[in-house]
Amino acid sequence: ELSQDIDENFIKEFIKEVDNKAIENNLKVLSKRPHMATTDGDTELVKWILQRWTDKDSGLDEAKEEIYDVYLSFPDKNNPNNIKVLTPNGTNVFTSRFTEENLNENDQSDPEVTKPYAAYAPRGNPKGKLVYANQGKMSDFESLSKKINLTGTIAIVRYGGAGRSTKAINAHHFGVAGLIVYTDPKDINDGNADPSQTYPHSWYLPPSGVERGAYTEDFGDLLTFFSPAKNYTYRINESDIKGIPPIPTQPIGFEDAKTLICQLAGDDAPLDWQGSLGCQYKLGPGFLAGGIYTDSDVQVNVYNYAEVRPSANVMGMIRGTVEPDRYIMYGNHRDSWVHGAIDPSSGTAVMLEITRILGTKVKQGKWRPRRTIIFGSWGAEEFGLIGSTEFAEEYYSKLRDRTAAYINVDISVFANATLRAQGTPPVQGVIFEAAKQVQTPVPSLSVYDNWIRHFNRSSTVYNKLIPQLGTLGAGSDYAPFLHYLGISCMDLAYTYDRSKTSARIYPAYHTAFDTFDYTAKHIDPGFTSHQAVARTAGNVLLRLSDSLVLPLAPIDYWETLESYYNAAESNMKAELSNRKIPLEPLKTAVARYKAASDDLKRTIENLKDTQTTPLKIRMINDQLMLVERAFINHYAFQDLPYFSHVIWAPRTSSVPTFPGLANAYSKAVSTGLLEDWNQVHHHLTIVIQAIDNAASTLETVASI
Amino acid sequence: ELSQDIDENFIKEFIKEVDNKAIENNLKVLSKRPHMATTDGDTELVKWILQRWTDKDSGLDEAKEEIYDVYLSFPDKNNPNNIKVLTPNGTNVFTSRFTEENLNENDQSDPEVTKPYAAYAPRGNPKGKLVYANQGKMSDFESLSKKINLTGTIAIVRYGGAGRSTKAINAHHFGVAGLIVYTDPKDINDGNADPSQTYPHSWYLPPSGVERGAYTEDFGDLLTFFSPAKNYTYRINESDIKGIPPIPTQPIGFEDAKTLICQLAGDDAPLDWQGSLGCQYKLGPGFLAGGIYTDSDVQVNVYNYAEVRPSANVMGMIRGTVEPDRYIMYGNHRDSWVHGAIDPSSGTAVMLEITRILGTKVKQGKWRPRRTIIFGSWGAEEFGLIGSTEFAEEYYSKLRDRTAAYINVDISVFANATLRAQGTPPVQGVIFEAAKQVQTPVPSLSVYDNWIRHFNRSSTVYNKLIPQLGTLGAGSDYAPFLHYLGISCMDLAYTYDRSKTSARIYPAYHTAFDTFDYTAKHIDPGFTSHQAVARTAGNVLLRLSDSLVLPLAPIDYWETLESYYNAAESNMKAELSNRKIPLEPLKTAVARYKAASDDLKRTIENLKDTQTTPLKIRMINDQLMLVERAFINHYAFQDLPYFSHVIWAPRTSSVPTFPGLANAYSKAVSTGLLEDWNQVHHHLTIVIQAIDNAASTLETVASI
Ligand SMILES: [Ca+2]
Ligand SMILES: [Ca+2]
Ligand SMILES: [Zn+2]
Ligand SMILES: [Zn+2]
Ligand SMILES: [Zn+2]
Ligand SMILES: [Zn+2]
Repeated sequence: ELSQDIDENFIKEFIKEVDNKAIENNLKVLSKRPHMATTDGDTELVKWILQRWTDKDSGLDEAKEEIYDVYLSFPDKNNPNNIKVLTPNGTNVFTSRFTEENLNENDQSDPEVTKPYAAYAPRGNPKGKLVYANQGKMSDFESLSKKINLTGTIAIVRYGGAGRSTKAINAHHFGVAGLIVYTDPKDINDGNADPSQTYPHSWYLPPSGVERGAYTEDFGDLLTFFSPAKNYTYRINESDIKGIPPIPTQPIGFEDAKTLICQLAGDDAPLDWQGSLGCQYKLGPGFLAGGIYTDSDVQVNVYNYAEVRPSANVMGMIRGTVEPDRYIMYGNHRDSWVHGAIDPSSGTAVMLEITRILGTKVKQGKWRPRRTIIFGSWGAEEFGLIGSTEFAEEYYSKLRDRTAAYINVDISVFANATLRAQGTPPVQGVIFEAAKQVQTPVPSLSVYDNWIRHFNRSSTVYNKLIPQLGTLGAGSDYAPFLHYLGISCMDLAYTYDRSKTSARIYPAYHTAFDTFDYTAKHIDPGFTSHQAVARTAGNVLLRLSDSLVLPLAPIDYWETLESYYNAAESNMKAELSNRKIPLEPLKTAVARYKAASDDLKRTIENLKDTQTTPLKIRMINDQLMLVERAFINHYAFQDLPYFSHVIWAPRTSSVPTFPGLANAYSKAVSTGLLEDWNQVHHHLTIVIQAIDNAASTLETVASI
Repeated sequence: ELSQDIDENFIKEFIKEVDNKAIENNLKVLSKRPHMATTDGDTELVKWILQRWTDKDSGLDEAKEEIYDVYLSFPDKNNPNNIKVLTPNGTNVFTSRFTEENLNENDQSDPEVTKPYAAYAPRGNPKGKLVYANQGKMSDFESLSKKINLTGTIAIVRYGGAGRSTKAINAHHFGVAGLIVYTDPKDINDGNADPSQTYPHSWYLPPSGVERGAYTEDFGDLLTFFSPAKNYTYRINESDIKGIPPIPTQPIGFEDAKTLICQLAGDDAPLDWQGSLGCQYKLGPGFLAGGIYTDSDVQVNVYNYAEVRPSANVMGMIRGTVEPDRYIMYGNHRDSWVHGAIDPSSGTAVMLEITRILGTKVKQGKWRPRRTIIFGSWGAEEFGLIGSTEFAEEYYSKLRDRTAAYINVDISVFANATLRAQGTPPVQGVIFEAAKQVQTPVPSLSVYDNWIRHFNRSSTVYNKLIPQLGTLGAGSDYAPFLHYLGISCMDLAYTYDRSKTSARIYPAYHTAFDTFDYTAKHIDPGFTSHQAVARTAGNVLLRLSDSLVLPLAPIDYWETLESYYNAAESNMKAELSNRKIPLEPLKTAVARYKAASDDLKRTIENLKDTQTTPLKIRMINDQLMLVERAFINHYAFQDLPYFSHVIWAPRTSSVPTFPGLANAYSKAVSTGLLEDWNQVHHHLTIVIQAIDNAASTLETVASI
């Protein structure tokens, strides 16, 4: 039936059927074994997910695995990375832990646990005097280098404040020979550092826990930018890879970090560089005179190797009835660093519960969506969103032309306080609508009403207080869909009560403590927050797949554009006037966008009252689907691979406006060069052009 | 009615109503006055076309002008460019003509006639010894430079063999200080050089005729790549423009060229450098000893200036009934160099006859197309396809998403022998169909049957002899639609009997002799070839606008892909094998494309027998529309602005295969460098990826 529309009863039924026990059981299977990308544990899950999605009673219409040959980096199993302290005569007086301490059954002692390492850091054994460089930001090294000649030193920095590999690139810039990265209890444990205060006694990270991670600045397979990493694909030379650490780099836990930092000599570190290791942090270089390490060097021993390995995405599909050529996508990565109970299996457990319910309905002949639903279990996300990026590259054309929205649920539960949603403005409304229909665990109120208590803002479009939708960076698999393809995206999860913790992220993140036991005891006992996420995300998915008119609201973009314009006006207008770069055309473009989206909104409202043809609705749906695409300009950010979205590209400037404009403006102010002011004008032009294109997509279609 | 389809009776009626007299009258108005871009003559035509398109009885639904502020180059009216011969003591013994000779009423003596110049050539007055450098190709200068030190010389070259500005860039590369370009009677006049043999006695170019032209390598406004040239747009510095002549350059007629070349000293020029000036061509440097110019220098005097000027496109629209959001575009430029009767007014006269008939039907309520038709009268094409490119930039998103095809009819009649069609493979079938329904003037047979006599090839898809569809370069306004937007394009015209002339182009091209009188007497007396083009192009337009299923045939692309693959295999396979670059995946991709397009073809054939929903047909139409888009890769040719179409980008290599692959291969063979062989593999990857994307667009839509 061409007018097939959303069925509210079906949604109620779906919500009722979401089973917390089933999610718990999914998570048990998913997190049983370490499953780093391309390891045996990962391969086993590929098979299991395929089996679930091809089940005759609860499977999807189709499922298959797709392999990409991607460039990964691993530690040497026989030669664990470590940090050593060596006295002047070469005696080794300290070696950092090779593995995390075993604290639950044999979770941490499982031989399949990947030993801590910085993926993509080069091999090497540099040694030198130790210095403490705070978070490894450029500004940190700049201020440190005013006091200490950093050439040939080993720097220790804490996680946070700058990207992983950026810390190493910054360090190298100042002549540092090797880098140690650790997790400070101040940043992750609300200051708690004692074993009695940490897991298994709480959710806090034990002293031996080490955050692993990809040390990369770009995403996607590093050898095959803009092409899928297939057997036929050209690969650049390893030596031409950019954005990875130029020096040996190794992460350690705060137990080991304390040993090193609390023995440092030199001036006191500034107040805001101090952490919670329980001592006064000093800058170095080298260790305290008269201490146990006096005159000793620190050596960073890295034995990583890189390899092209076959990584699988598992793809599943439910065919749409009326509009099979319109896709709603839902995905999460499958690969973890260790057991990955929270990251990413909490998300996969939710996805598999959604596919169980919808698959069963399809197999029973009770339901089939209006549009095609595509599920993706992405491989090698932890190495830089690789599986999803290669997929986006391989199917660029059809995904660009046909995908109305992408839903990402990676970590589904960081903590059990409230929903947290990030997305582009058009998806805001459908999340609100879905969240209103789902109840929170305890106390029972709607997910929406609970959410608005934690994050809210007043909206001129809604003319009231609404939950605050966060913005999307490039932290999970939505990135290629958003930045490269220009698809409306969202990322959903349950998260913290920020009045109760300031943890940078959930404390077991990327460590061997991110296990089923940890999740079941400390993150979501009873799995009811998982259930709430499954209900909300599933509801969003159904509304996008089944609604006659796509539940996407272009008018909501206007609030972003308007606030970006206002920020530009208040921060830049005077200086731009001096430079004869008028802001008025940007204001005009934003107003044009508003008028166009208002008009389209009215057209949609009036649809309900009249007899409407299927092609008229398809025309409107195409406008709703494609307006996000209009913000893509593949020529806008030529030195940032994949970043083509003029509104959401990375912004390094503090002015909360369009990223290209903000970054160019900050640079021009700092250099004062005419060519840099020209780039400000260039980026302003790109923004106006994108907004005009978006408005043009929303305006009456037969117009010139 | 959702199933509105093509009405063959309406097409017959349209064909009958196309009036050669009306076209002739259009041409009279269009060519009355010189109308170089942005001059008064151009502005007058903007008004006239607008008036035609807003006429209450025969106008379109909407029409408007759109202004872009674009960078143009003009000669100084008060200071005509010229070539001088100066004796050693500075006496001026020769000055080239400032204007063409007046040969018909006051056509050539009209003060609005733009004096001959090379647009975008810099001002200057270099002088030096004259050399003859054939066509100004790199190979020409290379061989000449082996005999003569070219530093500081003035080179004279003939049109043909290399792009206009490329000649000047090549000359500069060898130290040449000034360039003269002329039209050799051998190339344009089948050797005829005598005034008694040329216009007004025949279609051949008179001795004083000078070909003007844009001396540019890129297209679009040179200051605003990838952004529309609006008031808000950032413009690069003039000094950063690339691809224009680095040295003063001036075109002259063969009367003046003879004076210079036939006095040259030095070695005889090679046989294939000889032309039809009636003397032995020598290389120089300098003039014959004992002749009138002995020891004289030649001076190139150029007084051009550049300016940003407002240039208008005139846009017209007929709103579609069922699919207003699908566009069929039809366009031609309006601006000429002088009167431009043939180029471009012969095309505009045809367009206005089509809009008169269709506009009248619309106003009478007798017809309205299924899809929206957009007409464009582009400005400033002669300066580098500027109006159409700026339009493509301004409306990138909606044109990309909604345009099913672009029809270009620039010069509609080069000569009156046969139809000549260029296009991408999917448009081949609809041109055939239209051409079969139109009769040629005399002898009366179908345009198709006449066409196949002049240009034909055997086709494996059609399994018979078919007319040869030419390929599209970047010679007219289809270029931004094809190369930047990836829209299926065609260019239609009537042209020569190649057994009767080898003229490089119609002889009056870009000269002051391209007038109504010239056209009416020597190109198309009676305007019946114009009529045949109007009937054919209008029929194509109607079939594209009105057919329920778009008359585009993706299977026809397969023949191109297959022949490109075969050329790659026979020319490159052995060497690629040595380099471990397998061609097999390309073969696989081409086979996949064939299977997908065969399947879709069968699906379409089966449609006719069954009840089909409007959305199913829309789905198929989207596949037909978007398959061309799948060949676009904005990252494929980073140093060629706008060229993104992997199949049709410029090929400099002689191997008739995919352009990126062919060019990279030729370079690698010549340098032997590993990095160049890597680029071969890179471009092979890009081709496979594009073909896979195209296949993917054609395959069953609900697939993973
Ligand atoms: Ca890739
Ligand atoms: Ca431009
Ligand atoms: Zn994750
Ligand atoms: Zn992670
Ligand atoms: Zn033309
Ligand atoms: Zn022309």
